[in-house]
Amino acid sequence: MTYTLVLLRHGESEWNALNLFTGWVDVQLTDKGIAEGKRAGELLKEAGILPDIVYTSLLRRAISTADNALGTADRLWIPVVRDWRLNERHYGNLQGKNKEQVREEYGQEQFMLWRRSYDTPPPPIQSDNPYSQADDPRYAGIEVPTTECLKDVVARMVPYWEDTIAKELVTGKTVLVAAHGNSLRALVKHLDGISDDDISGLNIPTGIPLVYELDENLRPVKPAEYLDAEAAAAGAAAVANQGGK
Amino acid sequence: MTYTLVLLRHGESEWNALNLFTGWVDVQLTDKGIAEGKRAGELLKEAGILPDIVYTSLLRRAISTADNALGTADRLWIPVVRDWRLNERHYGNLQGKNKEQVREEYGQEQFMLWRRSYDTPPPPIQSDNPYSQADDPRYAGIEVPTTECLKDVVARMVPYWEDTIAKELVTGKTVLVAAHGNSLRALVKHLDGISDDDISGLNIPTGIPLVYELDENLRPVKPAEYLDAEAAAAGAAAVANQGGK
Repeated sequence: MTYTLVLLRHGESEWNALNLFTGWVDVQLTDKGIAEGKRAGELLKEAGILPDIVYTSLLRRAISTADNALGTADRLWIPVVRDWRLNERHYGNLQGKNKEQVREEYGQEQFMLWRRSYDTPPPPIQSDNPYSQADDPRYAGIEVPTTECLKDVVARMVPYWEDTIAKELVTGKTVLVAAHGNSLRALVKHLDGISDDDISGLNIPTGIPLVYELDENLRPVKPAEYLDAEAAAAGAAAVANQGGK
Repeated sequence: MTYTLVLLRHGESEWNALNLFTGWVDVQLTDKGIAEGKRAGELLKEAGILPDIVYTSLLRRAISTADNALGTADRLWIPVVRDWRLNERHYGNLQGKNKEQVREEYGQEQFMLWRRSYDTPPPPIQSDNPYSQADDPRYAGIEVPTTECLKDVVARMVPYWEDTIAKELVTGKTVLVAAHGNSLRALVKHLDGISDDDISGLNIPTGIPLVYELDENLRPVKPAEYLDAEAAAAGAAAVANQGGK
């Protein structure tokens, strides 16, 4: 008996296209991002991998990507669970800033430290910054972060995985998780046992389902596979180069 | 203390536009239907009525209408619950048939009996009919109807209202129910105490939020209001005339 888990990073958002740090800012998908979600649904359908339940973040780029994929795969009717713990990493005071400009202003080393180090968060965002989520009603009742490093994302994502998602998975359901570059990196780090150092080299492309087959201990029985490996490799390279020339 | 309940009938579907009996057949929205959902979201936003949770049927025309409305109202992130008990009335062997042709073939009296009588279901659909849902995976575990009259819809809808939706409502949440002409007629019949005879005259227009303010006993403190009363009156008249010349 193995369990099927599908991870899906949202398609291109308006701020991906503008090369801005997004984090918890709730931006829309671009037309390309919408198409990526539909393509993900086609890939799932072709592979015969039909989700029985979907988990999303509270951000519309992940929610809409899930809807576009599931609509295409004729699975729009499955149960839906949304949780802030699947949100993108909070990018602190970098939210709303251009990646290239941040790189030029602070230098490549600091830029890469904020983007890819495991435990160095960007400077915190002030609550009066228009890109702060301090007063967003969707986070009522939780302590909204002012910045996060990947380690912080792991600290909220992995318990949610263990307490909630994994419990549905072991009932035999095919589970789709539609989320973000860094919340999915946090989960992949956990599932694949990637070290704090090595995770910096892992990039997840947008819009391509990543399929895990997990054993009873929820360990991968083989390396996870992207349903379109060629597009995934190109997409991961594009993510790695963001902010570069 | 009163509670706010919003009912929303899905926008125009491809089969509404073709004047076909739809029932449980899972057809897409038309562009007009998509626009109706977005307009519903604008009306909610303008009225300051922001749903905290949404219930939908398992049919994509209701699911997508909810998504279009909530996306416009910036509430795509609220919890979602989907249940077959909010589905449209199963139209039995009429599913897939043209309303005008059925009226001509069977006569006005029989036609109106099937459409609007309280307890006369259309002939049952055979499981090998392409418009049967006997083998649809979304209904695994339930006894899929082969036909329903409105009384049958009341018998599944009202217990779901009492056991599930009403219990969320009395916690103080603003609840949106995105569903169908007949599942909403069943709920309105219950809420407004409409008789079995009088319910035949009630038509619910597509895409216009109908807002109930309910007291502690979940009785309306005043008549429910459409957020666009003029459009609602025109829409209800159009529904009443379906299948006519």
